[in-house]
Amino acid sequence: MSFSLPRYQEPDFSLPTFKNAPCARFEPAPCDGVAPDDFHATSIFPEYFQTNQGQWSLPVCSRMDCVVVNHDGALSVVEPRRLRQGDMVCVGRHENGEDGIYVHSEPFPVPPGSTAQFAFRTRMTRESSFSIDYDELYSLLRHERKHGSIVWVMGPAVVFDHDSREALEHLVREGFVDALLAGNALATHDIEASLYRTALGQEIYTKQSSPHGHYHHLDALNVVRKAGSIKAAIDNGSITNGVMNALHDKGIPFVLAGSIRDDGPLPEVYADCYAAQDAMRNIVQKATTVMALATQLHTIAVGNMTPSYTFTKEGQIRPVFFYSVDMSEFVINKLANRGSLSARSILTNVQDFLVTTARGLGI
Amino acid sequence: MSFSLPRYQEPDFSLPTFKNAPCARFEPAPCDGVAPDDFHATSIFPEYFQTNQGQWSLPVCSRMDCVVVNHDGALSVVEPRRLRQGDMVCVGRHENGEDGIYVHSEPFPVPPGSTAQFAFRTRMTRESSFSIDYDELYSLLRHERKHGSIVWVMGPAVVFDHDSREALEHLVREGFVDALLAGNALATHDIEASLYRTALGQEIYTKQSSPHGHYHHLDALNVVRKAGSIKAAIDNGSITNGVMNALHDKGIPFVLAGSIRDDGPLPEVYADCYAAQDAMRNIVQKATTVMALATQLHTIAVGNMTPSYTFTKEGQIRPVFFYSVDMSEFVINKLANRGSLSARSILTNVQDFLVTTARGLGI
Amino acid sequence: MSFSLPRYQEPDFSLPTFKNAPCARFEPAPCDGVAPDDFHATSIFPEYFQTNQGQWSLPVCSRMDCVVVNHDGALSVVEPRRLRQGDMVCVGRHENGEDGIYVHSEPFPVPPGSTAQFAFRTRMTRESSFSIDYDELYSLLRHERKHGSIVWVMGPAVVFDHDSREALEHLVREGFVDALLAGNALATHDIEASLYRTALGQEIYTKQSSPHGHYHHLDALNVVRKAGSIKAAIDNGSITNGVMNALHDKGIPFVLAGSIRDDGPLPEVYADCYAAQDAMRNIVQKATTVMALATQLHTIAVGNMTPSYTFTKEGQIRPVFFYSVDMSEFVINKLANRGSLSARSILTNVQDFLVTTARGLGI
Amino acid sequence: MSFSLPRYQEPDFSLPTFKNAPCARFEPAPCDGVAPDDFHATSIFPEYFQTNQGQWSLPVCSRMDCVVVNHDGALSVVEPRRLRQGDMVCVGRHENGEDGIYVHSEPFPVPPGSTAQFAFRTRMTRESSFSIDYDELYSLLRHERKHGSIVWVMGPAVVFDHDSREALEHLVREGFVDALLAGNALATHDIEASLYRTALGQEIYTKQSSPHGHYHHLDALNVVRKAGSIKAAIDNGSITNGVMNALHDKGIPFVLAGSIRDDGPLPEVYADCYAAQDAMRNIVQKATTVMALATQLHTIAVGNMTPSYTFTKEGQIRPVFFYSVDMSEFVINKLANRGSLSARSILTNVQDFLVTTARGLGI
Repeated sequence: MSFSLPRYQEPDFSLPTFKNAPCARFEPAPCDGVAPDDFHATSIFPEYFQTNQGQWSLPVCSRMDCVVVNHDGALSVVEPRRLRQGDMVCVGRHENGEDGIYVHSEPFPVPPGSTAQFAFRTRMTRESSFSIDYDELYSLLRHERKHGSIVWVMGPAVVFDHDSREALEHLVREGFVDALLAGNALATHDIEASLYRTALGQEIYTKQSSPHGHYHHLDALNVVRKAGSIKAAIDNGSITNGVMNALHDKGIPFVLAGSIRDDGPLPEVYADCYAAQDAMRNIVQKATTVMALATQLHTIAVGNMTPSYTFTKEGQIRPVFFYSVDMSEFVINKLANRGSLSARSILTNVQDFLVTTARGLGI
Repeated sequence: MSFSLPRYQEPDFSLPTFKNAPCARFEPAPCDGVAPDDFHATSIFPEYFQTNQGQWSLPVCSRMDCVVVNHDGALSVVEPRRLRQGDMVCVGRHENGEDGIYVHSEPFPVPPGSTAQFAFRTRMTRESSFSIDYDELYSLLRHERKHGSIVWVMGPAVVFDHDSREALEHLVREGFVDALLAGNALATHDIEASLYRTALGQEIYTKQSSPHGHYHHLDALNVVRKAGSIKAAIDNGSITNGVMNALHDKGIPFVLAGSIRDDGPLPEVYADCYAAQDAMRNIVQKATTVMALATQLHTIAVGNMTPSYTFTKEGQIRPVFFYSVDMSEFVINKLANRGSLSARSILTNVQDFLVTTARGLGI
Repeated sequence: MSFSLPRYQEPDFSLPTFKNAPCARFEPAPCDGVAPDDFHATSIFPEYFQTNQGQWSLPVCSRMDCVVVNHDGALSVVEPRRLRQGDMVCVGRHENGEDGIYVHSEPFPVPPGSTAQFAFRTRMTRESSFSIDYDELYSLLRHERKHGSIVWVMGPAVVFDHDSREALEHLVREGFVDALLAGNALATHDIEASLYRTALGQEIYTKQSSPHGHYHHLDALNVVRKAGSIKAAIDNGSITNGVMNALHDKGIPFVLAGSIRDDGPLPEVYADCYAAQDAMRNIVQKATTVMALATQLHTIAVGNMTPSYTFTKEGQIRPVFFYSVDMSEFVINKLANRGSLSARSILTNVQDFLVTTARGLGI
Repeated sequence: MSFSLPRYQEPDFSLPTFKNAPCARFEPAPCDGVAPDDFHATSIFPEYFQTNQGQWSLPVCSRMDCVVVNHDGALSVVEPRRLRQGDMVCVGRHENGEDGIYVHSEPFPVPPGSTAQFAFRTRMTRESSFSIDYDELYSLLRHERKHGSIVWVMGPAVVFDHDSREALEHLVREGFVDALLAGNALATHDIEASLYRTALGQEIYTKQSSPHGHYHHLDALNVVRKAGSIKAAIDNGSITNGVMNALHDKGIPFVLAGSIRDDGPLPEVYADCYAAQDAMRNIVQKATTVMALATQLHTIAVGNMTPSYTFTKEGQIRPVFFYSVDMSEFVINKLANRGSLSARSILTNVQDFLVTTARGLGI
């Protein structure tokens, strides 16, 4: 199966809708972190703003539920908490030109056969067929390895199992991972597996419980905190294998976001969750494909900050693909309810997903 | 990973518990389908009955929640509904010899490391590691192909997906399936896939909905009913591929049990669910391994009629392995609550399970 | 909150679509239980058939996935398995008059606010708000007690808990139950509770396990089988309380459909699942509201045989309301995928649902 | 149903196990945030440390997975990240006196009937009976209102529904809530409901979607951020009802912990998740009962920091009760796997739980 990017469908700005539209209005933020009344909030779609008559501008790095700030004609998409008093913020909530704003909700051609006519089985469940999704994913990942940026978002379940941890490590080493977004737990249990071959005290292959095994994750945290960082613990030879090790070897960036469930935490973990959001968004802005596995919290967080489109190196607009893989229909439905319309989902255990995907990619 | 059968631990009948025990008592069934008061109900374990002083008999084909009937010294394990008035039924509910009955609840050695000491992660969830379960399963299935009988129990989800349906067909053709227990839906959707390449009107690979696709399963049923049987529809060339086709080619028995959800039904389906139980138990009595996939109803039904042990061709007692594969912790917990203690479980989507298992077996 | 039935929107048969339509065609069934090629399959909606030019007939007792048989101008909706050779079966699959068939897919006005525009939260999850659903349900049930027929469909979970079993018994005695559709398990565990105050050996209020409690459901079955019927066991004073007792006291019909999971079964249980379907449909044809609780099997079975409309005693067309209550989004999605579009759902534990509903009705 | 506290079972320190035990050892933390090798990690149980021969000390505010620091004979239970270089940390991992440490794993008498013998239904599922749990909860909450401290931990689902939000508000106003631990989302949607009667744009009673309703939660955040705080927005009359309003009126403390999913956030939200942990633990240390509803993240976070015991005002040791209420068996199993052994669970929709509980308490 070969892969080709769908072609962006530019709006036709010669249409009367656009010709007759006013310029977008911008009003000053009344104070730091506060938007003016009637602020415009962004969607996941490309949005155009008529900054001067006849000039429709598309901000470069978008995401949903943010505001649009005009700095001398340059538009940026900003979380409201990052506003500074006086920033000129776009106001207006009509989306079809009436306020000088156009939300382009069908930027790419809809694949044939995917129309939502009446049919049985219109909703995805565990009984949906996923064969084609795997095959399309393999060709997508092969394309993105060369031409894009694949960002993985993961819960700790991926490293609780020997084979899936190994598959993920191989994916990193073979170039299919451009960045990792996760929490303290994934890194901690991956490091526990390197130090003791266990996750939460249970051998990751044989599942035998170690004596005093419940100390392992606390000891792993202590070892790394003593070394000063994950990097230092790898450099001093404490951590010799696994996902974090492979990321280090390949120089691949990661963000570990803290949460109130954390023990430790590991030194690289962001304690401030909004600093973590900023670091995550820096990475997501370069993403062309997002793979979100077995984490409701991080999947929704990243879904919120992932636009439906980005730019190729050649400056062309292309879609951002978003896969979520989870056991739970609830997570999938929740993502759908949240508006991340471009998401595709596979309902399965991520252990099988990773092992199957690695094998499908021939690694 | 090589496979060896655990060795049966015969009770030591020279112990005082047995020496001092009375003979088991048998009383006549008061009428058809009714047991005498205080009847003994069987468990999933081997159970011995002292039929004459010093002679402890083990019935050949056991299952739980049945009664034990004595026909001139030969013991059989019988569903109460199959009792005939006057059948001599074992009475007594003590399980350690007091009533001449011994329930042997630890017939095989417990594998090291599986003891239930305090530990994190004592319950299986989707986050349990399953790598070793797959590897052990491959070696088990290779052993059973030669030396045992592998009975598969399945819900329709296994044929909704192109790759898993193909994997299952390969498993049949390569000798890893000795019998199939399923419902009307599995066979219907498998046949729909052969006739129209759809399941409930959706292409099983591309997932495109066919025009009038909701007719496909009704048409599939009508085609087979017109032919007179699945067999006839295969013989006349209507059904050319798939699971039912492979079973037919290899002469492998199947039981399709009817349910109140059925359309059709297909001609081979048992309308009487207790006749279906009898047919299923005939097959289960020969099983050495049961693979139950993606069906709560059939998994529990078969779990109820599967003993924890059976006999090798050489007459030795060996365990019956019972795997259940499902997305739902509820099904797994329910099975545990029901008493099928010997069950092992893998929590995943059966599509991935079948594709992975076929690949792990090298087919 | 008061309740009023939505008014049926009769098609306007004076429109050209109807004026220019041919008469519906009927062809003989080629043999028993087999429909002619190109048979028309019914939906859940009202469907009109032009039997003579200008005369559009609506069959009285419809259900989906059946065929329409013409007996001298009288149309009946028949399961294909019940066809007799030579029965005149409607053929044609166009639904907008082209084949003399009109499927009326919007028979009742859509409530304001329920349109499917873009919005967050378009899918129901456990986080949907259900306050209004309860309040509307109370007013509906009060209306139906006087003017309709409320059919309850239930899994055994409703009698595993003391308070919900009592709530259900009260609903029966207060006239909110016109029929019950269930399986062997519900009746068995309800009777076990009457005999021993346990369900599967666990006290239904204190949850304490009884010694030898696993015998209770087997003993309950044996007691009733010895008496000859549930009715006889109530009449002889063995069963003194609970759901089955209340149904008996009030003369309310029930259907217990057998399944391959059953122990026993109780004498009243249908062994033949298609005979059970027929008995269930006889009851469902009179239903004006269906309440389906905590059973995937029976909910889908009854959903398949429940039309979206029925007739009032005065001969007017009115909707049939279908509520499903379950813990699992999967069941709800599955029902949606199956085409039972008129279903409303509440995602909760049925224990709470029954207790809350009984209290909301003031009983 | 009346309530009485179980009586603490003091260890008998005159036993040889204790008489012959060495004193506990304490070693200095090698640097800030790092424990010495072989550090002792606390459990949820009471733990005694022999600080001088014959003197067994019990730290006052315990929690699991922490270290024990000795400040001149006063023991405190400290998260490793809060250690300062040179702090004297208890080392030794034996739990039965060998290291001068005694973990008292059966501090309270086990209720009769709750022993873990063989039985059906040993695991809790959605089909477990919960009647008694409700009744015991009512009497517990009535007791705790007078004599204890009830800490509620909640996900946003509790305010998505009109009736459950109102029930929770009543519980606050009637004195059944001593503190609230939640995230940004709960407060945001509660405030959205006060401002616009919606949650994520959907009317919380009628479920109608508002035009531009997806702006509501962003507008709610902006309104509060403009006011400066939730308190200020209540004081200026913007927020007039709901849970946050009731907490403010009653002067009840709350902690809102930030997460990477947050929009906004509200001004009171802790951006630093470890500062949030500290604030939460300050509250949990006073808790006598914890009610955790519909949040996996916060439930596990609070479960980790909640000990199994605390002290009454009179200085007596009593249990801390921990209830978790969720739709998902996974959350419950996960809690069990994590070691929060004292947790009790109710599997249901929290909407029903709150409405039922408020009614059960007569409010």
